[in-house]
Amino acid sequence: MIRVVLIGGGNLATHLALAFQKNSKIELVQIYNRSLNRIENKFNSIPKTDALESLLPADIYIISVSDSAIKAVSAKLKKLKGLVLHTSGATDCSVLTNQRTGVFYPLQSFTKNSSLDFLNIPICIESNNSTDNIVLEQFAEMLSKKVYFIDSKKRKKLHLAAVFVNNFVNHMYHIGEEICSENDIPFDVLYPIIDQTAKKIRHLSPIEAQTGPAFRKDTKTLDSHKIELNSNRLKIYTLLSEAISNIK
Amino acid sequence: MIRVVLIGGGNLATHLALAFQKNSKIELVQIYNRSLNRIENKFNSIPKTDALESLLPADIYIISVSDSAIKAVSAKLKKLKGLVLHTSGATDCSVLTNQRTGVFYPLQSFTKNSSLDFLNIPICIESNNSTDNIVLEQFAEMLSKKVYFIDSKKRKKLHLAAVFVNNFVNHMYHIGEEICSENDIPFDVLYPIIDQTAKKIRHLSPIEAQTGPAFRKDTKTLDSHKIELNSNRLKIYTLLSEAISNIK
Repeated sequence: MIRVVLIGGGNLATHLALAFQKNSKIELVQIYNRSLNRIENKFNSIPKTDALESLLPADIYIISVSDSAIKAVSAKLKKLKGLVLHTSGATDCSVLTNQRTGVFYPLQSFTKNSSLDFLNIPICIESNNSTDNIVLEQFAEMLSKKVYFIDSKKRKKLHLAAVFVNNFVNHMYHIGEEICSENDIPFDVLYPIIDQTAKKIRHLSPIEAQTGPAFRKDTKTLDSHKIELNSNRLKIYTLLSEAISNIK
Repeated sequence: MIRVVLIGGGNLATHLALAFQKNSKIELVQIYNRSLNRIENKFNSIPKTDALESLLPADIYIISVSDSAIKAVSAKLKKLKGLVLHTSGATDCSVLTNQRTGVFYPLQSFTKNSSLDFLNIPICIESNNSTDNIVLEQFAEMLSKKVYFIDSKKRKKLHLAAVFVNNFVNHMYHIGEEICSENDIPFDVLYPIIDQTAKKIRHLSPIEAQTGPAFRKDTKTLDSHKIELNSNRLKIYTLLSEAISNIK
């Protein structure tokens, strides 16, 4: 049984708390939040605190707060004997100044009202010594089948890659949906191509899977599309089409 | 039994020919290609021709050639009594000058060496009268569970939306893969977030699903990402981050 204290109340912290509650090998001993009333009711059975100096003894402390707050929270936890982890993709492990430190970065996009199965979420871990690596790996494997040791430098790159394949991809979906709704076309006509686009890159590299007017340098179609677009979408269309047509 | 003549030899024509061959309600009576030797060997049992004036009698003629060639091919088929269809998303139905015309546009990205099940591919159809609509709908439903009547104007918008959710999304995957490979990170760490991003928009709108540093206006992370990027990727990162941060 691994005893865990969770510090934070955002989307990721909420998903983690739910996953810990469901896991028989993990005991969620306490949840910290600056404002006790921001801890959701479904965690009423878990001890709560709004004082960082009152954290209970635990094997692992997870700081799941906004990136800019990690350093300050860590600095207030100097006396803890447990392993102190943050959950940020973009933050170096070295911002933690505790006795034992590490990173527990689940590579997924966490939206509050969207349920998730941690079993298939890649968890990228890092710590500063081989003993803590063992503890951390064991802990991560209680939650996920996909555990990777990734150091801070690589994790930052991975986080950047995730911005492209998640945040920016989602924005492309947003524009696609807007074009559909403006023209009274059901967005679900696009679901199959969206799914297939995501699946195809498992057996073809993205460059092998690339199709479309920009890739085949079909200037007539490109021009006819550009006429349809307003200035913001036009900028995106033009820049991405140029990038694609420059690949070959 | 619907008799079909297929005109063309590209990715889509090849996938269509395979689907027709497998379908007991469709008889693929002939394949046309300018160069007979460009018709794949797996279609050896189907009659072939390289002369548009020698097309066999059929119920439906499918012109599946590059967008710029559709008009010229159609003009050479004036005498045909069957329904002449093109398969292009970006091309108006009116470029066809035959006696009976229509559009059969499968909304999917066709890559030659990637197998496809037509059953779940949306097929957008259009013709010029109600009788041909019935024939065309019946034919499309032999191949797919998802048949939509979409006119030329809407189809053009839909095709544009598909460029965003397929071509541009795939380019985001390409950049993500490059960042991974440059940093010796296995690209498959990103498969789960790619899948989840595609799935999430079935129960949340893309705008509700949006996350990331641009959406939460986290300038520190945005700046730290920009430092990592070369000029082409930086342009894309900056433009898309601005677009996302302007949503709210």
